[in-house]
Amino acid sequence: MFRYVTAGESHGPALVGILDGIPAGLRLDVERINGVLARRQGGYGRGGRMKIERDTIEFLAGLRGSLTLGSPLCVMVRNRDFENVRTLMDPLTGSGKPLTNPRPGHADFAGALKFRQRDLRNVLERASARETAMRVALGAICAQLLEQFGVRITSYVTRIGPVEAPAFEEFPDPALVDASEVRCPDRATEERMIAAIDAAKAAGDTLGGQFEVRVAGMPVGIGSNRQPYERLDGVIAGSVMAMQTVRAVEIGAGAAIAATPGSQAHDTFGLDEGQLMRGSNRAGGIEGGMSNGQDIIVRVSQKPIPTLMRALPSVNLHEGERAPASVVRSDVCVVPAGSIVGEAMVTLALVGPFLDKYGGDSMEEVLDNVRRSQEAAAGLFPNVALS
Amino acid sequence: MFRYVTAGESHGPALVGILDGIPAGLRLDVERINGVLARRQGGYGRGGRMKIERDTIEFLAGLRGSLTLGSPLCVMVRNRDFENVRTLMDPLTGSGKPLTNPRPGHADFAGALKFRQRDLRNVLERASARETAMRVALGAICAQLLEQFGVRITSYVTRIGPVEAPAFEEFPDPALVDASEVRCPDRATEERMIAAIDAAKAAGDTLGGQFEVRVAGMPVGIGSNRQPYERLDGVIAGSVMAMQTVRAVEIGAGAAIAATPGSQAHDTFGLDEGQLMRGSNRAGGIEGGMSNGQDIIVRVSQKPIPTLMRALPSVNLHEGERAPASVVRSDVCVVPAGSIVGEAMVTLALVGPFLDKYGGDSMEEVLDNVRRSQEAAAGLFPNVALS
Amino acid sequence: MFRYVTAGESHGPALVGILDGIPAGLRLDVERINGVLARRQGGYGRGGRMKIERDTIEFLAGLRGSLTLGSPLCVMVRNRDFENVRTLMDPLTGSGKPLTNPRPGHADFAGALKFRQRDLRNVLERASARETAMRVALGAICAQLLEQFGVRITSYVTRIGPVEAPAFEEFPDPALVDASEVRCPDRATEERMIAAIDAAKAAGDTLGGQFEVRVAGMPVGIGSNRQPYERLDGVIAGSVMAMQTVRAVEIGAGAAIAATPGSQAHDTFGLDEGQLMRGSNRAGGIEGGMSNGQDIIVRVSQKPIPTLMRALPSVNLHEGERAPASVVRSDVCVVPAGSIVGEAMVTLALVGPFLDKYGGDSMEEVLDNVRRSQEAAAGLFPNVALS
Amino acid sequence: MFRYVTAGESHGPALVGILDGIPAGLRLDVERINGVLARRQGGYGRGGRMKIERDTIEFLAGLRGSLTLGSPLCVMVRNRDFENVRTLMDPLTGSGKPLTNPRPGHADFAGALKFRQRDLRNVLERASARETAMRVALGAICAQLLEQFGVRITSYVTRIGPVEAPAFEEFPDPALVDASEVRCPDRATEERMIAAIDAAKAAGDTLGGQFEVRVAGMPVGIGSNRQPYERLDGVIAGSVMAMQTVRAVEIGAGAAIAATPGSQAHDTFGLDEGQLMRGSNRAGGIEGGMSNGQDIIVRVSQKPIPTLMRALPSVNLHEGERAPASVVRSDVCVVPAGSIVGEAMVTLALVGPFLDKYGGDSMEEVLDNVRRSQEAAAGLFPNVALS
Repeated sequence: MFRYVTAGESHGPALVGILDGIPAGLRLDVERINGVLARRQGGYGRGGRMKIERDTIEFLAGLRGSLTLGSPLCVMVRNRDFENVRTLMDPLTGSGKPLTNPRPGHADFAGALKFRQRDLRNVLERASARETAMRVALGAICAQLLEQFGVRITSYVTRIGPVEAPAFEEFPDPALVDASEVRCPDRATEERMIAAIDAAKAAGDTLGGQFEVRVAGMPVGIGSNRQPYERLDGVIAGSVMAMQTVRAVEIGAGAAIAATPGSQAHDTFGLDEGQLMRGSNRAGGIEGGMSNGQDIIVRVSQKPIPTLMRALPSVNLHEGERAPASVVRSDVCVVPAGSIVGEAMVTLALVGPFLDKYGGDSMEEVLDNVRRSQEAAAGLFPNVALS
Repeated sequence: MFRYVTAGESHGPALVGILDGIPAGLRLDVERINGVLARRQGGYGRGGRMKIERDTIEFLAGLRGSLTLGSPLCVMVRNRDFENVRTLMDPLTGSGKPLTNPRPGHADFAGALKFRQRDLRNVLERASARETAMRVALGAICAQLLEQFGVRITSYVTRIGPVEAPAFEEFPDPALVDASEVRCPDRATEERMIAAIDAAKAAGDTLGGQFEVRVAGMPVGIGSNRQPYERLDGVIAGSVMAMQTVRAVEIGAGAAIAATPGSQAHDTFGLDEGQLMRGSNRAGGIEGGMSNGQDIIVRVSQKPIPTLMRALPSVNLHEGERAPASVVRSDVCVVPAGSIVGEAMVTLALVGPFLDKYGGDSMEEVLDNVRRSQEAAAGLFPNVALS
Repeated sequence: MFRYVTAGESHGPALVGILDGIPAGLRLDVERINGVLARRQGGYGRGGRMKIERDTIEFLAGLRGSLTLGSPLCVMVRNRDFENVRTLMDPLTGSGKPLTNPRPGHADFAGALKFRQRDLRNVLERASARETAMRVALGAICAQLLEQFGVRITSYVTRIGPVEAPAFEEFPDPALVDASEVRCPDRATEERMIAAIDAAKAAGDTLGGQFEVRVAGMPVGIGSNRQPYERLDGVIAGSVMAMQTVRAVEIGAGAAIAATPGSQAHDTFGLDEGQLMRGSNRAGGIEGGMSNGQDIIVRVSQKPIPTLMRALPSVNLHEGERAPASVVRSDVCVVPAGSIVGEAMVTLALVGPFLDKYGGDSMEEVLDNVRRSQEAAAGLFPNVALS
Repeated sequence: MFRYVTAGESHGPALVGILDGIPAGLRLDVERINGVLARRQGGYGRGGRMKIERDTIEFLAGLRGSLTLGSPLCVMVRNRDFENVRTLMDPLTGSGKPLTNPRPGHADFAGALKFRQRDLRNVLERASARETAMRVALGAICAQLLEQFGVRITSYVTRIGPVEAPAFEEFPDPALVDASEVRCPDRATEERMIAAIDAAKAAGDTLGGQFEVRVAGMPVGIGSNRQPYERLDGVIAGSVMAMQTVRAVEIGAGAAIAATPGSQAHDTFGLDEGQLMRGSNRAGGIEGGMSNGQDIIVRVSQKPIPTLMRALPSVNLHEGERAPASVVRSDVCVVPAGSIVGEAMVTLALVGPFLDKYGGDSMEEVLDNVRRSQEAAAGLFPNVALS
């Protein structure tokens, strides 16, 4: 059974993840995983911490000679900053002056009451988005798995603050996206996005935005209508909304579909020389809670990060006095990084349902199951060709 | 541990749900549950099936003298239509002419390939939104549970097709919502919504829309930042996106926050005579993946139902010829009903994390745990009053 | 994903189970399921209740024309006794004089404190072994699934009280077992077992015993050494020990292996004309937490049922006075019935790991995956023939 | 929600475990955890590897200043042997001559077919009992948690090969057990056990045995009769049977109860000056799948380890020729170590149901919930005193 679990504080010794259920015999390219981690750290508008950390993945289990063993994979990303704050954060001896002023938009306040912590640091260390480095590492491993089955996953930024990109009809060229400092494949928009970030920085403000994750090549029938919680759109939305800054998740045509009449809201079936065709992809690749063979399209909205250079008003909970929110770090815009995390969260959401359908304990077995299953599906209706 | 499982085909003998982990000693008001089921069946713009079914809940297990025993609750809603279609759907002997033309926007095509079914009826019977009657029944039970802790959950429609209601700042009066045929508490908007439905009906078209679910009284600290999949916003979004027609889920300020600068996107902390206050509720009651004590606000966008009076173009998969999509039913707009289902899906998403925090096998025990926990939280920072 | 959930009180309206994850296209023989239910109710030494109930299964969901749809199966077994005790047990109105004297060996006392119930009936209704009828129904469905893959599961009684059968080396003939009133395929032992039951009955006493469950035809590699809780022996033991009267579970040579030297405790590998052979089956078909292709053998010890005609000493918890335990029913020996339940619990434990390895949403797909996987395994070591 | 996941190969870089759901504010004594790890490595009859490894735990996450944060705990035990075999086992570059001769009683054969590995090393590295070091580390953390609630867990050896200890009626003094090289608190038996190990060693043979795990102080009502898989006896048996060498698990009177008449097989209730008393503890602390307040007693039988100095007959799977089994290590008897692992597996089985009943995110909250719950239970029947 596929599962993943992560651990790690923002300034603790390391981030760690265990990824269970990956078949044996998958060859992993570690440099490509590190490349994805670097992309998460990059992007125009990042602050100082990103210069301290240069995340690289270390395998502690499950891999031998770059091949998965079928046993649980364990990966670690060291926090280089830990050595700088050891007296504060050492697992056995760490202590220090408590943080007292909860930051609006963060876990600080809710977490303090939940875990009964008077030092907000004890909450924010785990709640910090630093943790997403491990999600990205695990997602990048899973992407290499799905790639073996012809599944390609990419992400790209479509809005930063007030600047919105034109709609991308096609699966964008990942190289083009990666070449952009804001992960937007449209050069004209990219310039305006950078200008918007510069303006926000000058104003001591921050910016949110939107990105899309797109999945090509997913076979038909992943996910299930058996139970509400097995529907693929729900599984994806749950995974993506669980990012620290996400406030909206849309599939396919998304929220706009609510205002569209039914006659223009769906994807008709047609035939082109015997080949089954769809008239559009408003459903975003998912019907009835299952993949339908078209690109899966997920649009994600992120709020601006709440830590501003001019700290938001808060309260010193110890003293009962107004005080500015604790300042912990100072990016201006994390949407490009967010798109990398979003890509990981979509990938992690897909792998479980994929392996649940196809089974298999080795790559050879899964590959054979997938191939045969697709052949059989193609033959189910002999009078119609399914691409 | 809280869990729920449902079963049931649209025209099979019954819908059944098992709800496990509800504490002993909760007194259930069955008439109120039936009332919620009736609301799901109502709403301006529903078609003929709703007149056949008058859903009522029957308890098969877990209840004695209207009090929960602590053992699994099992509830059944009979499909009255089953007797009419018994030769077609009988579990032991049912059979009939296959459905061959997949409906755009439905599970028909993806499910046929997944389950290798040449008769699309074998797919659509489970995939049909008829199944949501059971989600509503289970959600209504859970709502009665949460009510005991001062948690109130309501839903209301904010858009039908092109007609949008003004923003509702306050928790709307549920009685006002229930009194509206389109579940919109704003009378002027209601009229325009009904007119839009009439126009769509006249045009043989269908309409989608939007609704909000709002939760008041949830204690601070429900949900968790421990694992990505424990974050309350993710859990809620996953539950709601798993509805048959939902294409977008937003929390609090939602997608609009992406275009808002950081200085105006968060909810400041302040003090009012020693009482901790928030400046706004853009976060929609959830920060860091945990409830923060403010109203939880979820905005949901539904696509128009894909079965139009003028059937969408499709293909007869058996014959390999163009053909109109199979027509199964004919509502014009299901957004009011959708809001009831959405309310249930939010409720079902909340109960697990709630009971996970407070534990307890009897109502007495849970009530005591909640009360004591809130008292202790209130005393965590003696210099600040938490309402 | 495979899962099952059950509900139902002993004297409530019905027992219900939902079985999720069964592939589409499995043809179920309902009469054979009812036959297994009848075997659970039979056996020499049963009391009066068994004459009231004649359990038959009713499908509420997941089946059409005797073929599974791939959607959740829901089955119901009505409690015929419910109509007799409706005033006591009606879900909405039931009430009655509380039971106050906990029965040693039952859930009464622990459950009363757990669920805070002063009426022990509110505990024992769910805790009663009546609930195992649903386990047996679900297990019998799963047995028909596994049968399609050549997996055969049987059970037989090896001890009743002081009377022990000789060891059965071979997979016993199920017909011979079913023909025995005590489910013991050895006629001489059967007679002595019946005599022991008669003697216990005459003495107002009860008897426990032992049975074995044996599984033939399970492919190699079911279960996993990935996580402790994925090991097949653990999964089986957990399932079987969760029966109301079981106090010991042994795999293969079982507890006796503790006293055997290592040189005689394992199953050597050998070759017979190129065919890989095992020297014995002391491991009981499981090595390293995975099936190894030999018969899986599980030995189970049941305590005598604690409700004796001469009630055991107890205490009236309301009055604080010594009093005999409440008497609820009066079998003398349930070991033959227990073996049927044990068979079900082993079957339910096997199906999840089986489907986890092979995947598949339809019988056709699973059958193909299993066949191909076994062919590939057979070719892994070309110089050795694996049967 | 409580969960644990482990990873790690026997000769890989490290063993890692993530323990999720431990409340905040638990002070951990790391030296005591290392002490338990040392006990797993000790015991009369261990071989050479134990001299290479001196397991110590390293915290990578979840702990600050020795206090749990409420976030996931991540612990690592480095494999010191890894540096010696790096060319063979390096995650990125490791490779070497394949192991070809499966060991009877190990995962080698079944795992090779499951994961399609021609090099048996790729299977045995994860399947090895080396992995239990991490189970012991996680179990020792959980034991420190339960200790805060007055729950004490201990283990002791009752049989090594042919030598059986007398029955221990009382909870043995853990110091006495730890002082014994074979973890048997009876000095006379200890001597005979050591002699048996010496004799086996001289004969090139190995020995199994039995141990008991005993839990004192567990509150009433842990575990549940709601679902079969929530019963505490099943959960414990599943956890313990998932040890590499275990072949039998018994609760309380165990298998012997099968031959005992019902009149002598249960634990009567009585009163002693108003105090509720039990006449015995044959049930081993669990009735109806729930803890009943008496000591929980689990008896476990281990097979002798299958790697003998005189290797068992096997087959070279590559060559198709008879050959002795691969020899990987050479303990004579691991029952004392096994008892430490068993203690961990019982502990890990108990924590989930314990926290499921009491809830709570901080030690303060859990402690308060437990105390109040026990007070309320004590008052449920005012006329009877529950200790």
